[in-house]
Amino acid sequence: MASLRDRFEHATTPAAFRSYLAEFISTFFFVFAATGSAMSSRKMSPESPMVDPSGLVATAIATAFALSVAVYVAVNISGGHVNPAVTFGMAVGGHISIPLAIFYWISQMLGSVFACMLLKFMTVSQNVPVHGIPDEMTGFGASILEGVMTFALVYTFYAAGDPRRGAFGTIGPLVIGFIAGANVLASGPFTGGSMNPAYSFGSGAVGGSFKNQAVYWIGPLVGAGVAGIVYDNVVFPAQSPEDLIRGITDGIGV
Amino acid sequence: MASLRDRFEHATTPAAFRSYLAEFISTFFFVFAATGSAMSSRKMSPESPMVDPSGLVATAIATAFALSVAVYVAVNISGGHVNPAVTFGMAVGGHISIPLAIFYWISQMLGSVFACMLLKFMTVSQNVPVHGIPDEMTGFGASILEGVMTFALVYTFYAAGDPRRGAFGTIGPLVIGFIAGANVLASGPFTGGSMNPAYSFGSGAVGGSFKNQAVYWIGPLVGAGVAGIVYDNVVFPAQSPEDLIRGITDGIGV
Amino acid sequence: MASLRDRFEHATTPAAFRSYLAEFISTFFFVFAATGSAMSSRKMSPESPMVDPSGLVATAIATAFALSVAVYVAVNISGGHVNPAVTFGMAVGGHISIPLAIFYWISQMLGSVFACMLLKFMTVSQNVPVHGIPDEMTGFGASILEGVMTFALVYTFYAAGDPRRGAFGTIGPLVIGFIAGANVLASGPFTGGSMNPAYSFGSGAVGGSFKNQAVYWIGPLVGAGVAGIVYDNVVFPAQSPEDLIRGITDGIGV
Amino acid sequence: MASLRDRFEHATTPAAFRSYLAEFISTFFFVFAATGSAMSSRKMSPESPMVDPSGLVATAIATAFALSVAVYVAVNISGGHVNPAVTFGMAVGGHISIPLAIFYWISQMLGSVFACMLLKFMTVSQNVPVHGIPDEMTGFGASILEGVMTFALVYTFYAAGDPRRGAFGTIGPLVIGFIAGANVLASGPFTGGSMNPAYSFGSGAVGGSFKNQAVYWIGPLVGAGVAGIVYDNVVFPAQSPEDLIRGITDGIGV
Repeated sequence: MASLRDRFEHATTPAAFRSYLAEFISTFFFVFAATGSAMSSRKMSPESPMVDPSGLVATAIATAFALSVAVYVAVNISGGHVNPAVTFGMAVGGHISIPLAIFYWISQMLGSVFACMLLKFMTVSQNVPVHGIPDEMTGFGASILEGVMTFALVYTFYAAGDPRRGAFGTIGPLVIGFIAGANVLASGPFTGGSMNPAYSFGSGAVGGSFKNQAVYWIGPLVGAGVAGIVYDNVVFPAQSPEDLIRGITDGIGV
Repeated sequence: MASLRDRFEHATTPAAFRSYLAEFISTFFFVFAATGSAMSSRKMSPESPMVDPSGLVATAIATAFALSVAVYVAVNISGGHVNPAVTFGMAVGGHISIPLAIFYWISQMLGSVFACMLLKFMTVSQNVPVHGIPDEMTGFGASILEGVMTFALVYTFYAAGDPRRGAFGTIGPLVIGFIAGANVLASGPFTGGSMNPAYSFGSGAVGGSFKNQAVYWIGPLVGAGVAGIVYDNVVFPAQSPEDLIRGITDGIGV
Repeated sequence: MASLRDRFEHATTPAAFRSYLAEFISTFFFVFAATGSAMSSRKMSPESPMVDPSGLVATAIATAFALSVAVYVAVNISGGHVNPAVTFGMAVGGHISIPLAIFYWISQMLGSVFACMLLKFMTVSQNVPVHGIPDEMTGFGASILEGVMTFALVYTFYAAGDPRRGAFGTIGPLVIGFIAGANVLASGPFTGGSMNPAYSFGSGAVGGSFKNQAVYWIGPLVGAGVAGIVYDNVVFPAQSPEDLIRGITDGIGV
Repeated sequence: MASLRDRFEHATTPAAFRSYLAEFISTFFFVFAATGSAMSSRKMSPESPMVDPSGLVATAIATAFALSVAVYVAVNISGGHVNPAVTFGMAVGGHISIPLAIFYWISQMLGSVFACMLLKFMTVSQNVPVHGIPDEMTGFGASILEGVMTFALVYTFYAAGDPRRGAFGTIGPLVIGFIAGANVLASGPFTGGSMNPAYSFGSGAVGGSFKNQAVYWIGPLVGAGVAGIVYDNVVFPAQSPEDLIRGITDGIGV
C-alpha cells in the first residue's frame, strides 16, 4: 500500500502545478463572465426587483459561452473541470486521484473568489449576486433541482471526453457550455442554475452570505457522482481496456 | 418469415436496453430545459398574459442548446433521436426496426413525463405550460405548421447522419439543435414549436390537458415520414451499397 | 464554341435537378425561420410600432441558426448557396456555370415565395413583413449598406469553401450563419439585414409590396460580385492548380 | 545584426500585403457588426437613456458572432488577429516580428475607422457610440477591467492556435468569439467590453471623442502581453522544438 507521501507525490509535480493554475484561470474566466453578466443586467434595470427574462438570457448566454471557453482552454492541461462537482464526478469514476482532486477544488474555489473580488472592486462595490432560492421552495427541493442539472452537466462531460466518440469529441467544449446555458434558462428564478459549488462559494464569500450554501454543494456533488456511475457502468460501459475513458474527462492531459 | 419472437429478440439485448436508457436520459434533458425555460420566463413576468419576445428567445435558446446536447450524448448509443417523430422518420427509411422503434417511443415519452413531473414538484406546483394554439388557428393549420417544421428537423437529422458528408458530420448535433431553435422562434405564438410528440405528451400529461394533442402527433409524424422519403429517395439517393445511411440516423450505434 | 443546347445540357441532368431541389428546400427552411420569427415578435408585441431590441435578437438568432442549417443540409448537393447573391458571386468567380445559376435563382425564389405563402396561410393571413428602409435613408445609401453586408457574407462563403483551410472547413456552415446573424443585429432598424434577393422577393411578393425591392437586388449582387473577385484574386489567390476553390463554393457537389 | 532595411523587407512582400488586407477586412467586419448592433438597439429604444439588457444581449451576440467570423476568414492568411492587443500579445511571445506588427496595427485601425464611417454615413449621421465608463468608476479601475478581459481573450487565442491541441483547433475561431461575447455581457454597463484598441479608436475617431481612450489601450495591451507570457512560459511551456506555437497564433499563414 502506498504511503501518504507517495500518494501525494504525483500531486506536486510541475505538470500538476500547471493543472492547478489552468483550473484557477479557467474558473476565474467562467465565474467572471457568469457573475459579471448578472451584475450588468442588474445595473441596467435597477428598478426591477428581480431579473427579467432578457436579464436571464444574458446570464445564460454568458454562462454557455464562458464555460465552453473555460473548458476549451484547460482541456489539454487539466482536463478542464472548472467545477468541484465535475472533479468529484471524475474521482468517483476513478479518472482522477483524490490528492489531485483536492488541489483542483482549492484552485477552483480560489479562482471563483478572485473573480468575484475583482468584480466587486472594479464596479466600486456593487453587490455581487449570491445564489439563492425563492421563499416557496425548500432547501431539499432546491438541492434536487441543482443535483439533476449537475447530473446533466457531468453526464455531458463524460460523453464529451469518451474516446469512442471519435470526431464528435471536437465539439465537446461547446456542448458542455450549451447544457449549462440551457439549465440556467430552465432554473433561473428558482435556484439560479449554479451546478457548480465553487461558483456559489465565490459569490457567497464575496457577496457576504452563505445562506443556502449547502444546497449548492450537496445537490451538485450527489448529481455528479451519480452521473459518473451511470455513464461508466450502465449507459456506456467499457468493453475492452482501450475503451477506458480518456481525454477531456481525465486529469492531467497532454 | 421471422416469427414475432425472433423479431423482438434484438430489441431485448443489453445493447438495446442501453439505447432505451440513453433515449430516456436525453429526452429528459431536452424536455427539462425546454419546459423549464418557459416556466422561468412565466415566473419572471407573471403579469404579462402571454410570453413576450425575450421569453421566446429564452425558450428558443434553451431548445437549441438542450437538443444539441441531448443528441450529442446519445448519438453513439441510440442514434440520439430524442423524439418519436425522428424515430418514425428513421423507421420509414428502414434505419430502425419496428420493435426497437416502439421501445424508443416508450422511453422518450417516459423521459418527457419525468422531466415535467420533476419541474412541477420542484417549483412547488407551478403550472407546466402545455402546447396550444391561438383561437384564430384551426387544428388542421396547426398540424401543417408543426408538420413542416418537423420535416425540416428530420431532414436535417438525415443530412447530419449521412456518412457521405465526411467531416461535416462532426457539427451535426449542433445544427440539429439550431433548426429546432430557429423554428421555435418562427412559430412560438402560433403553435409553440414542439416538433416532438413526446415533448407535447409529457407537458400535456403533467399539465393536465390533452386539448390539441392530436396536432402535435399527426403533423410531426407525417412531416417526419415525408422527410425520410424525400431525403433518401429524391435529394440524395444512395448510389452504391457503401452510401447507405449510417451513423447518427441509425438505431443502435457504437 | 458550345451551342446553347450543349451549354444547357449539364443543367438538366438528374444531379442538377437534385441541386435545384436542395436549393428550394434550403431556401424554404431559411426564409420560413427568418420571416416567421419577425412575425412571431410582431404578434407578441402588437402595440409597439416597430420591432424592439428583443424582437431584433429573436430575428437575428433565427437568421443565424436557420442559415447555418440551410447551408449545412445542401452543401454536399448544391453547394448550399440559399441566396441568389451567393450564386452570383460564385458565377463571377467561375465556380458555377450561367445556365445552372439561372435555375438556382429560380429555385431559391420559389422556395422563398412558398415559405412566405405558408406563413401567411397558416397564421390566418397575418401580414408578412416586407423589407423596407426608414424615411431618413435613401435607396442609394440602403443599397450600399446591403451591399457591404453581402460582401461580408459572400467573402465568408468563399473562405468557408476554400480547401486550403483544411479542418476549418468543418465549421464553415456555422460561421456563414453567424455573419448573417451579426449583420441583422447591425442593420435591423435600417434596412432589415436581408443580404438575400430571394428572401426580399418572397416577402415582397406575398406581403404585397415591391417598394424598395431594387435596394435588395442591386446592393447584394454588387457586393457579392466584388467579394468573389477580391477573395479569389487579391486576398487569397490560387498559387497552383490544386489550389482551385472547391467544396462549399462549388455548384454540384458529391 | 540585421539592418533596418532587412528587417522591414519581409514586411513588404506580396504575402505580407495580403495579410494587411486580410486584417483590414476582418477588423472592418467585426467593428461594423459590433458598433452597428449598438446603434440599432439605440435607434429602437431612443427614450431609454442607456442600453437595456436586451440591447446588451444584441451587442454581445453580434460581437461573438462577428469576431468568430473575422478570425475565421483571416486565420489562414494573417493569423486572424483583428485586434492590436492580440498582435501585441503575439509579438511579446515572439510569434510575429515588430515591423509586421506595426503594419497589422495600421490595418486594424483603418478597418475600424472605415467601418464606423460607413455606419455614420449610411445611417444619415446617427451618433456612433463611443466606449466610455460610468461616473463612479476610475480610469485605473476601468483599465484593469479591460486588461483582465483582454487577458482572457488573448489567452484563449493562444490556446486556440496551439498545435498540441489537435482537433480542438477546429473550433478555435468559435471559442474566441464566445469569450468576447461573454465578456461584453459581463462588462457592458461598466466599460462596454471593448478589449480591442482599434475598435475603441475607430468609434472614438468617428464619434468625435477620445475621452477615456487611454483606458482602452493601456489595459488591453498590458493584459495581452501578460497572457502571452503566462501561456507560453507557465501554463503550457513548449517541451520540444515541434511544440512551438504555430497556426492561429502566428502571423502570416498558409
